[in-house]
Amino acid sequence: MSGLVAPEVTRLEPAALSALAEVLKVTCPQATLVLGPEIESKLLTDFIGADVGCADLYLKVGTAAEVSAALKAAYVRKIPVTVRGAGTNLVGSTIPRGGLVLDVSGLNRVLELDPDNRTILVEPGVKLCDLQALVESKGLFYPPDPAEKQATIGGNIATNAGGMRAVKYGVTRDFVLALEVVLPDGTVLELGSPCLKDATGLNLKHLFIGSEGSLGVITKCLLRLIAKPEATAHALIGFASLAQGISAVNTLYAANLAPTAIEFVEKKVIALGEQFIQADFPLPEYQAYLIVTFDGKADELSAKLAACQDALQAQYEVGFLPLTEPEVASRVWTIRAALAKAVQASGIWEPVDTVVPLKSIATLIDDIAQLSAQEEVRILAFGHAGDGNVHLCILKDDIPEAQWPKRLERVLSQLYARVYQLHGKIAAEHGVGRHKRQYFLEQVSPAELKLMRLIKNSIDPYHMFNRSSGYAE
Amino acid sequence: MSGLVAPEVTRLEPAALSALAEVLKVTCPQATLVLGPEIESKLLTDFIGADVGCADLYLKVGTAAEVSAALKAAYVRKIPVTVRGAGTNLVGSTIPRGGLVLDVSGLNRVLELDPDNRTILVEPGVKLCDLQALVESKGLFYPPDPAEKQATIGGNIATNAGGMRAVKYGVTRDFVLALEVVLPDGTVLELGSPCLKDATGLNLKHLFIGSEGSLGVITKCLLRLIAKPEATAHALIGFASLAQGISAVNTLYAANLAPTAIEFVEKKVIALGEQFIQADFPLPEYQAYLIVTFDGKADELSAKLAACQDALQAQYEVGFLPLTEPEVASRVWTIRAALAKAVQASGIWEPVDTVVPLKSIATLIDDIAQLSAQEEVRILAFGHAGDGNVHLCILKDDIPEAQWPKRLERVLSQLYARVYQLHGKIAAEHGVGRHKRQYFLEQVSPAELKLMRLIKNSIDPYHMFNRSSGYAE
Repeated sequence: MSGLVAPEVTRLEPAALSALAEVLKVTCPQATLVLGPEIESKLLTDFIGADVGCADLYLKVGTAAEVSAALKAAYVRKIPVTVRGAGTNLVGSTIPRGGLVLDVSGLNRVLELDPDNRTILVEPGVKLCDLQALVESKGLFYPPDPAEKQATIGGNIATNAGGMRAVKYGVTRDFVLALEVVLPDGTVLELGSPCLKDATGLNLKHLFIGSEGSLGVITKCLLRLIAKPEATAHALIGFASLAQGISAVNTLYAANLAPTAIEFVEKKVIALGEQFIQADFPLPEYQAYLIVTFDGKADELSAKLAACQDALQAQYEVGFLPLTEPEVASRVWTIRAALAKAVQASGIWEPVDTVVPLKSIATLIDDIAQLSAQEEVRILAFGHAGDGNVHLCILKDDIPEAQWPKRLERVLSQLYARVYQLHGKIAAEHGVGRHKRQYFLEQVSPAELKLMRLIKNSIDPYHMFNRSSGYAE
Repeated sequence: MSGLVAPEVTRLEPAALSALAEVLKVTCPQATLVLGPEIESKLLTDFIGADVGCADLYLKVGTAAEVSAALKAAYVRKIPVTVRGAGTNLVGSTIPRGGLVLDVSGLNRVLELDPDNRTILVEPGVKLCDLQALVESKGLFYPPDPAEKQATIGGNIATNAGGMRAVKYGVTRDFVLALEVVLPDGTVLELGSPCLKDATGLNLKHLFIGSEGSLGVITKCLLRLIAKPEATAHALIGFASLAQGISAVNTLYAANLAPTAIEFVEKKVIALGEQFIQADFPLPEYQAYLIVTFDGKADELSAKLAACQDALQAQYEVGFLPLTEPEVASRVWTIRAALAKAVQASGIWEPVDTVVPLKSIATLIDDIAQLSAQEEVRILAFGHAGDGNVHLCILKDDIPEAQWPKRLERVLSQLYARVYQLHGKIAAEHGVGRHKRQYFLEQVSPAELKLMRLIKNSIDPYHMFNRSSGYAE
């Protein structure tokens, strides 16, 4: 939300607007069309909801043909388009500044689950939670596991969403075999294939994954599945300090145990979760924690937990608690999952989604502590230690309203500059959107930005898609 | 080699050539510069060597700065550029049709092996065999394992090379964290990062991976490593028919044993290898074989082999031979590895690198047998059953020279059309190059081709790079 220089709003002339509406009524008769003043504000914002945009027209479509028809109508009129799915993004990608909001959450059919090929073909509006439940009911598994289960698969692909299990399995990108996309001019095309290898020309599928709706609209997604792991085991590990916990991640990697996830959290952050849901976290005598997950054959998991404990205890004084009792395991994960909500309940905050190389996590955490002290702003860190993805919550607390934007901007500028110095990125899995655009533009190399824009311009010559968002001009 | 409509040759005027040579002598004084007539023919061809191209200038550079200087000089003169590494490609990508041959095999330094971050930074001319030996000596592992170990890492990235271990680990693309590339105009830029997640703008790194030298020159490669597996175990499995062996791949997947590789080969193909190296293949009473590889903790591997045997024997009458005796294992792999050489020694042949969805491998194999009978051409199939990558050798045998090109073209046209019908691709890991261009252009969708060319044109507006190769105009 912070650091947002509101981009220029483009509003349609009344005549152009009614012409477009008339065309859409004819070409997309089944779609829901709402004119500007009547659009509900929740359809003009993101998950945070603090910044509400504006649009001339909202169109909720249900088929790829409607997407194509709507885009053709917008293209010839050079009307800005903002695509939205479930609206769970955290970076303002779904906050329009005029033009057409194209809602594809109604494209939500599962088209084919193919157990022989271990693939599933879905429309982009299928929710992650529904996809996971469906494939697991068939003994299959979709490894990407972003925290927000109400997000759509299309949104997951558009942001290259990550999640905890990236440590073992990779991110959304690694499980997208093929896409059907509609280009800004309405052209429908297929990218990728159901095959596991491909060396035929430029890989356009990967260009669309993570492009945050800047190149077109995803209308079909062919995802790769794997066999469902037989069992999962977790352990909570307590450390004397966060620095020690972070350095233990390398010990875990060296032990070659293929963990599914390695999460980290500090005691002071856990305290918020404990308070929020009124429950106690185990191993209270430690200052920081790793939560390690393994999956695989049931009979191999206890050996993995033991090997993990041995490897860690050979180097550190740790508390090691295998989460074998369901009640304790559930309590640990419930408190962990409540952190974001606890922060949200505590007032105004800024979500941060940095990623650095594994060996630089500890340095970043140190620098954040220093920055927090220097700027007198509370910063909570937790996240995915196993892949370098450090989430921060920067809390307004009682900083006066008038001072907050400037203070936050100063913190973020310094933080993101430091992240780039450490060869990191300011968005690991949330995207850049509107909220991080300013910082992204400050840090990205001019040559890389120029190349991104060259490609954008060749596909979206009128800059219709997600204007003033992300890398776009 | 087949189906090749020789693209138009572009030769430089003598004045332009000597002007370029003079500039290169000044800007790249350390580089090796050879004028057209003196260029060795082995530097103007690919691994097959049947088609030798022509060039006006050959320049062997040793630094990224020289690459940039050479490209700047070529760019302002709009001179075609063909990049070459070790020249091990099988599809004619390194066969120039005039202009400049830029040899980057001299950029072959290992710049940094970082055990804490499990990454290695190398120049593109480092050979795969050298990279593998180096990282394994440090207890680390680079999973991609294309068969040609003399290939360079730069070439592996340019073709998104695959190999056997793709079943468990994925292909080259999955292990490239970042690239330094030089664009056609000489701009040097970094793409990607040492981080395991990234959601900041268009992913340009993935656009360069697999682009077969059509967008610029790779000058640095940051690769992701994993801890070296403690041990590896193999089993040879004999089946009554290839169809049965192929259908057993699904049984293996369903057993959830995470095999590293699943290779298939027919007895009649093995016979060639046996003859070539004068050794006997085990389990001679079967018609087709799978060779399955597992890696991991030493103490888990025998259980995996047993589970593999149980799963297969529950469904099929198979011969199951764990390759635990070093002599037997070595014999099996030596015969398997000799197949390509045995074919090469048998005379003129065409290498084929199709990939289809897993469930369509058996159909493709059936169709190939039919095509072989119908066209009276011997076609041998072997390859990577675990990822759908079916390699074929189409043998000329005693088909008269005059008939061969037409006959081969007819076989390939039908074969590749069938591959596309099965939602496959005509290049899984070798690339399109010059040899498969005609067939690729026949099958690719016009919309996808148009989009590839839009992007190509935005980056390489004078069509300097790998002209008339792959998807390029």
